[in-house]
Amino acid sequence: MSQDWQQLNTDVIALLKEARQNVLQKMRNPLTVAEKTNRKDLVTNVDKANEQFLIAGIRRLDPTAQVLGEEGFGDHLTSLQGRVWIVDPIDGTMNFVKQQDNFAIMIGIYQDGVGQLGYIFDVMNNVLYHGGPQLGGVWANERPVSAPADIALADGLIGASGPLVIHDVAHMQKIVHDSAGMRISGSAGIEMINIMKGETLGYISHLKPWDIAAGQVLMNTLGVQVSTIDGQPLDMLSSNLVLVATKKAQRDILQIEEDDVSL
Amino acid sequence: MSQDWQQLNTDVIALLKEARQNVLQKMRNPLTVAEKTNRKDLVTNVDKANEQFLIAGIRRLDPTAQVLGEEGFGDHLTSLQGRVWIVDPIDGTMNFVKQQDNFAIMIGIYQDGVGQLGYIFDVMNNVLYHGGPQLGGVWANERPVSAPADIALADGLIGASGPLVIHDVAHMQKIVHDSAGMRISGSAGIEMINIMKGETLGYISHLKPWDIAAGQVLMNTLGVQVSTIDGQPLDMLSSNLVLVATKKAQRDILQIEEDDVSL
Repeated sequence: MSQDWQQLNTDVIALLKEARQNVLQKMRNPLTVAEKTNRKDLVTNVDKANEQFLIAGIRRLDPTAQVLGEEGFGDHLTSLQGRVWIVDPIDGTMNFVKQQDNFAIMIGIYQDGVGQLGYIFDVMNNVLYHGGPQLGGVWANERPVSAPADIALADGLIGASGPLVIHDVAHMQKIVHDSAGMRISGSAGIEMINIMKGETLGYISHLKPWDIAAGQVLMNTLGVQVSTIDGQPLDMLSSNLVLVATKKAQRDILQIEEDDVSL
Repeated sequence: MSQDWQQLNTDVIALLKEARQNVLQKMRNPLTVAEKTNRKDLVTNVDKANEQFLIAGIRRLDPTAQVLGEEGFGDHLTSLQGRVWIVDPIDGTMNFVKQQDNFAIMIGIYQDGVGQLGYIFDVMNNVLYHGGPQLGGVWANERPVSAPADIALADGLIGASGPLVIHDVAHMQKIVHDSAGMRISGSAGIEMINIMKGETLGYISHLKPWDIAAGQVLMNTLGVQVSTIDGQPLDMLSSNLVLVATKKAQRDILQIEEDDVSL
């Protein structure tokens, strides 16, 4: 089994490197940008083409698996049984459109609902973060990633999504106040990378399965906690208000949520 | 005169490169961190040592000038007459402490209150942004920086400071809503770099003179507007609620401020 996972990992890395080259190639031409649910929820020709490319590759590697893709070119999932691949072809599409930087290609591979392998490809910096329990660690390209220090909320910076802060969802303003400060990057994948680099201690955002599938595998492998904002396991078939944090910061944040409930 | 400025520029670049080496050297040892006004307002041994190093160098280059430094090792300024150097030895000290990245060394040189040369050194990426009217442009190391596209607020991302957003100072939440989204980096210098790269269209924050002295020179040279949030010139002897933006976005934001006044 483990040898199969090793081979699969090698194949996925090759697929992602080809996907990155395709994306860079397409970025030389003007993007075709469309709105999905509103003017801040974008999709481009590159998101769509890359998802189709990735799903075709996944079908070749793993013909019996289910595939869930952000742009809808995969399967309609009703269960996480068996092997499930969860694909975000461009995470941080607004950054992709406005910055041509700070976005990621992401794949998470789950078996019967349990994360096995995760991939977050920082395209512009050409660093592929990958790993999971089947590989026994996490790597940034060839370099092993060590577990972030288990610091308390007060001792580190926290990544956030802008709307949550502005609307003060789930006591975000209190959480930010208690932390050392807030940073906003605009991409869940880049936020996971910031946590792996020790630049932030966590991240809070409303996320769809493809936004967090890869990140959850990598975080868990490094001892970083991933849960809903009230400490429950994520539902990977739905959207969640996700809390990613060091163990100590998770405890601090869950306490803030609990204090409010007891009012 | 222009030749003098050219020579001065060459000397300042040499001074800043030496300062960067000193900072990198000191980062190999544990930092000594102290709080200034509160637990989110930090100063380290490196801020202090670097300010002393820079001011000593400036005194050698320009003995009759006044020097204003964040950590207080310069002069006590009561006027901007003559030549004034404004120094931020580490801009983004919280990032410096928590991330060892995303901070800058900055110098602005003013003559009778008018910006002449500006320097923002992204230490970890080793890119020195420098320029001004006396050089006729802005460069990122040796590469000329072109003027950012003059886009409207709705068409770009805006940099912000967390507290302004949380407390909704100066209609920040409406400004963010009308933009394509908010990003937070934690360093005024890095925000200026993001604008020069075209990644954001502007930045709004409460800033001290050393936070914006270099940036104001570079922005003005590139046609990006720097004013207070109500469109007035900055007072470089005091703190200001600063609006940096493309011409179109500045107009959009000033309109938001004006609409409120008329209520």
